[in-house]
Amino acid sequence: MKKEKDSAGGVKYSAYEGEHTFQFGGANDRVYLESGAALPSVTVNFQTYGSLNSPGDNAIYIAHALTGGSLVGEHRIPGKEAGWWEPLVGPGKAFDTDRYFVVCSNVLGGCYGTTGPASLDVRRDRPYAMRFPVVTIRDMVKVQKRLLDHLGVKRLACVAGGSMGGMQALEWGVCYPQTVERIIAIAASGRLSPIGIAFNQAGRRAILNDPSWQKGEYYGRQIPRDGLSLARLIATITYRSYESFESRFGRTLQKAGEENQLSIRDQFLVESYLDYQGEKLTCRFDPNAYLYLSKAMDLHDLGRGYSCLEAALGRIKARVFLMGISTDILFYPQEVRGLAVEIRRCGVDARYDELTSPHGHDSFLIEYNTMASYIRDCLGDRP
Amino acid sequence: MKKEKDSAGGVKYSAYEGEHTFQFGGANDRVYLESGAALPSVTVNFQTYGSLNSPGDNAIYIAHALTGGSLVGEHRIPGKEAGWWEPLVGPGKAFDTDRYFVVCSNVLGGCYGTTGPASLDVRRDRPYAMRFPVVTIRDMVKVQKRLLDHLGVKRLACVAGGSMGGMQALEWGVCYPQTVERIIAIAASGRLSPIGIAFNQAGRRAILNDPSWQKGEYYGRQIPRDGLSLARLIATITYRSYESFESRFGRTLQKAGEENQLSIRDQFLVESYLDYQGEKLTCRFDPNAYLYLSKAMDLHDLGRGYSCLEAALGRIKARVFLMGISTDILFYPQEVRGLAVEIRRCGVDARYDELTSPHGHDSFLIEYNTMASYIRDCLGDRP
Repeated sequence: MKKEKDSAGGVKYSAYEGEHTFQFGGANDRVYLESGAALPSVTVNFQTYGSLNSPGDNAIYIAHALTGGSLVGEHRIPGKEAGWWEPLVGPGKAFDTDRYFVVCSNVLGGCYGTTGPASLDVRRDRPYAMRFPVVTIRDMVKVQKRLLDHLGVKRLACVAGGSMGGMQALEWGVCYPQTVERIIAIAASGRLSPIGIAFNQAGRRAILNDPSWQKGEYYGRQIPRDGLSLARLIATITYRSYESFESRFGRTLQKAGEENQLSIRDQFLVESYLDYQGEKLTCRFDPNAYLYLSKAMDLHDLGRGYSCLEAALGRIKARVFLMGISTDILFYPQEVRGLAVEIRRCGVDARYDELTSPHGHDSFLIEYNTMASYIRDCLGDRP
Repeated sequence: MKKEKDSAGGVKYSAYEGEHTFQFGGANDRVYLESGAALPSVTVNFQTYGSLNSPGDNAIYIAHALTGGSLVGEHRIPGKEAGWWEPLVGPGKAFDTDRYFVVCSNVLGGCYGTTGPASLDVRRDRPYAMRFPVVTIRDMVKVQKRLLDHLGVKRLACVAGGSMGGMQALEWGVCYPQTVERIIAIAASGRLSPIGIAFNQAGRRAILNDPSWQKGEYYGRQIPRDGLSLARLIATITYRSYESFESRFGRTLQKAGEENQLSIRDQFLVESYLDYQGEKLTCRFDPNAYLYLSKAMDLHDLGRGYSCLEAALGRIKARVFLMGISTDILFYPQEVRGLAVEIRRCGVDARYDELTSPHGHDSFLIEYNTMASYIRDCLGDRP
């Protein structure tokens, strides 16, 4: 992980080397967003795995979650850290790159090479910070469509993702029904629930409360590290579950033998774990990007701009595969199941499966064996 | 609500007028706590309702939750704000003050008149702040026992409470088995779960991150308002439920008609509600007390100091009534049910009931009709 100046003078957080970029926009092609705001141009950081066939119809787009990036599979450079779904993406794996052309890009508003609040605002010759326009899941998907057009992709055999990635997968189906054959959306819903908004608000407030945040104008100075760290600490609780905290940490103390040394300071192992998770993110993520992407999740509503949710869902032509996670406290399984029912009511083919796992929301990043089997099944690629 | 200097020069948050206080300790009677630390003296703020009979055995102690105080029933002064369980405490009510002598006191470490971090440290002639010793649920109960001895109470017909109040009720049964006839513990457990510790840690971190916190030495200056407000915002999420946020707020916006005015700022009604809850607490609660009391919850473990949890539970001679709440995400109903099983395994009479409510953890402060009926049933006082 490293942080550096990007070519345009903005700040770039880079998870890996060997990236591809695609740029579009320009004086006669301003990039309009759902809010009505426009960006002069957009740079997209992306990775591809496998080869596109000549009809251009063997592509799979994989969408990342809140703090992810385009590195979804193996690193190009041997020995380097692998991507976030690496056990599922590669030759002979569930997303089989011998058969499919897999594309993943960093989302609009992110901080891994795609245009976001840390990018250079050319009009001001400094990073956008909070002048960056608000971004929606739909905006992200429209940027991804531009990328896939550029790559020559005509049809997507599948769009897949978990959490915010699942939101994008669903939005793909609504925005580009002619393009998408299958949607795999795990631990995601058609619009974020109010308790999901509430947890995101808590995280954003943690960043805004940090005096280093400076209304977002911290670039080149100290980043609001304590704020981002707390935001991640809160989020991490919601990515796990009662059961996983119980079995992994219980009430174990950080230092054995301190049972009777009662103290006001942090003593429990679960506290040092959460601190570590919080601190770790501050080395690799831009706090303003955290604000924008969590807001994009809040604003996620497949029905926005349509007469009703059903009108949006009825547009989908893909087969929809929804997976809920039994212990998820952020996207309750009954909510995911409810979306499958709603989609079917609109005459669209939607299947619901529930992953029984103690690991909570993040199970889609943990339960690889089950995920691999599920994905092969959705793709109709039983070995 | 008002904030003022107390008689000793410390800062006192006062929820109401007409308080009783009881002081104990002194040069030859230092008050030793579970940590081994000692306080020179302790002041207890308390309220009583009804009359103690001559055998002194018609008393009920009601224990408050994290940010509560001793005002559990009607206010002494007509027209003033009523207490936190007022619909349940009074003549002819579930806790019938025509029959029972009801006592409630502010906990040790609190900020409503009982000794806590905002109280004067006489050795330094300023508030204790973070020099206040760590406090446990057991310490709170021992202080309550001193108060009840002082009031002439010989037996408790019942000790009752929800959340941190339920923890105290259970600890009463373990510490003073000869004194307690019935325990009613709602949405509480025998030791706080690691996810409960995690949420408390997030709240404390919010306070510690606030530059106004000043390592706790903010008395007489600006209090860490943003930090306490965020701590309360986070906690409020966990006091509600997916269902209650969904039905009460859904995705309703603060301003109607702004559906297409996408913005990075807070827009959803649930956000202004949580902000309001956070802000409201900053007018009436001491941030350091929040640190100490949430830590007391974390440290709650009925088995501490005994060979095992069973050894502690086996001491109980009271009839135990445990109530879980179907949608509680802080004290999962299965955890409360599990405690009832464990208590029974120790040969103690324990009943488990589950309140089916969409309101989450705070249901015990909302579902008054059900609570009243349940309490009458536990007390054997069917009308």
